[in-house]
Amino acid sequence: MTRIKATIEYDGTYYHGFQRQPGMTTIESTLVEAIQKVTGEKLELWAAGRTDARVHARGQVIAFDTNSSIPPGRFARALNAVLPEDIKVLQSEEAAFGFHPRYDARLKHYSYLVYRQEAGRVFYRHQAYYLPYALDLGAMQEAAARLQGTHDFTSFCASGSGARNKIRTVVSCRVLERPPFLQINVVGDGFLYNMVRIIVGTLLKVGEKKMVPDQIDEVIQGRNRALAGPTVPPQGLYLMAVIY
Amino acid sequence: MTRIKATIEYDGTYYHGFQRQPGMTTIESTLVEAIQKVTGEKLELWAAGRTDARVHARGQVIAFDTNSSIPPGRFARALNAVLPEDIKVLQSEEAAFGFHPRYDARLKHYSYLVYRQEAGRVFYRHQAYYLPYALDLGAMQEAAARLQGTHDFTSFCASGSGARNKIRTVVSCRVLERPPFLQINVVGDGFLYNMVRIIVGTLLKVGEKKMVPDQIDEVIQGRNRALAGPTVPPQGLYLMAVIY
Repeated sequence: MTRIKATIEYDGTYYHGFQRQPGMTTIESTLVEAIQKVTGEKLELWAAGRTDARVHARGQVIAFDTNSSIPPGRFARALNAVLPEDIKVLQSEEAAFGFHPRYDARLKHYSYLVYRQEAGRVFYRHQAYYLPYALDLGAMQEAAARLQGTHDFTSFCASGSGARNKIRTVVSCRVLERPPFLQINVVGDGFLYNMVRIIVGTLLKVGEKKMVPDQIDEVIQGRNRALAGPTVPPQGLYLMAVIY
Repeated sequence: MTRIKATIEYDGTYYHGFQRQPGMTTIESTLVEAIQKVTGEKLELWAAGRTDARVHARGQVIAFDTNSSIPPGRFARALNAVLPEDIKVLQSEEAAFGFHPRYDARLKHYSYLVYRQEAGRVFYRHQAYYLPYALDLGAMQEAAARLQGTHDFTSFCASGSGARNKIRTVVSCRVLERPPFLQINVVGDGFLYNMVRIIVGTLLKVGEKKMVPDQIDEVIQGRNRALAGPTVPPQGLYLMAVIY
């Protein structure tokens, strides 16, 4: 039995999220089918993060145990031969004994893309959030810096989350100009349900001058979802990398 | 009766090309339906170029005559309200009497995108041609320069074309590094069927060192489609702009 670790990317547009659900096409079910095709084995899969419907990944990490004779480094090519063209394995290798992509992750890096201009938007309709209005970038950057650190992120957690402990550490939150995009990078040790999308919605509220950067501290301290900004749409969100 | 000129962009992935065909969803049929929705008129539409299935446009130009009371400049917004999200009108205005988007065009600018790296390719599968191999850019640029000028482009014309006169003028043919893309720009007074895609296929053959730049002259002079390179796939091609 060998444990395989694989780094994958996917365009989440046409999937009902990562996690397997009865009767739905998900990233997980598509990967499990692909592995079954190349190894003949029906197996369990673990992932670093369960991305939602329409959310993308450029560096999702998965693991599975196999008795196949395929060398660990060759799984990438073998799986790519049977995977649909919107899911690709970038790299595969043998994992350490007991490795778990989620519990062993030290940091996760998410990016959110906002598309800033009218022309060309049709090409990014599934891959960015279209927002052509003026934004105060300096204020957004100031607000982003206030989110960094160890906080109770209850205000940035969608209701319905099962997480009891809502204290997380955001080691970096940055707003970058990448014309024609605005790219918001968030790196942290873990994220609550919809946390990145609520962080971005809150930063955009600051950018639109409906909130001042100083208010971020009050939003955090209030521990109340209603104090933060809206949840931005899923298609701008990317799980970029998982750091072990 | 007012003649309206409109500049449109579209993601051609899910369309059977521009031109109306019975029982097929095309860009033209979708535009005609949208105009019918906002004006109540069923009308004829002219376009600067008939793009093929899966080919995109960032600056296609169309025209139509209408008796509607919608101000010419407001057609963009009116049509965008009813168009699907992969077709957008960027601008609309009243055209000069007798204006025809195709016959009045002086120059057309096409771009072809080649995606050069493994990571991220799932996001460009419908919008670029994936080719991660080493290419000799200097040789490609030399070959591109030799295509410029007024030539008989029979060697760069797909069989089945109805054009009798195959002399065209390419005013600019350039190969640009735009990491992670290679962008090939071709500007000319007119293009034969599949001409841009055969030019790109030939330049890539030079890039792969299966042909030397000097051979371009022989390919042109031979007036034989078999001498040129292959026709590259449609999804990398964009009608960028039409110059009047």
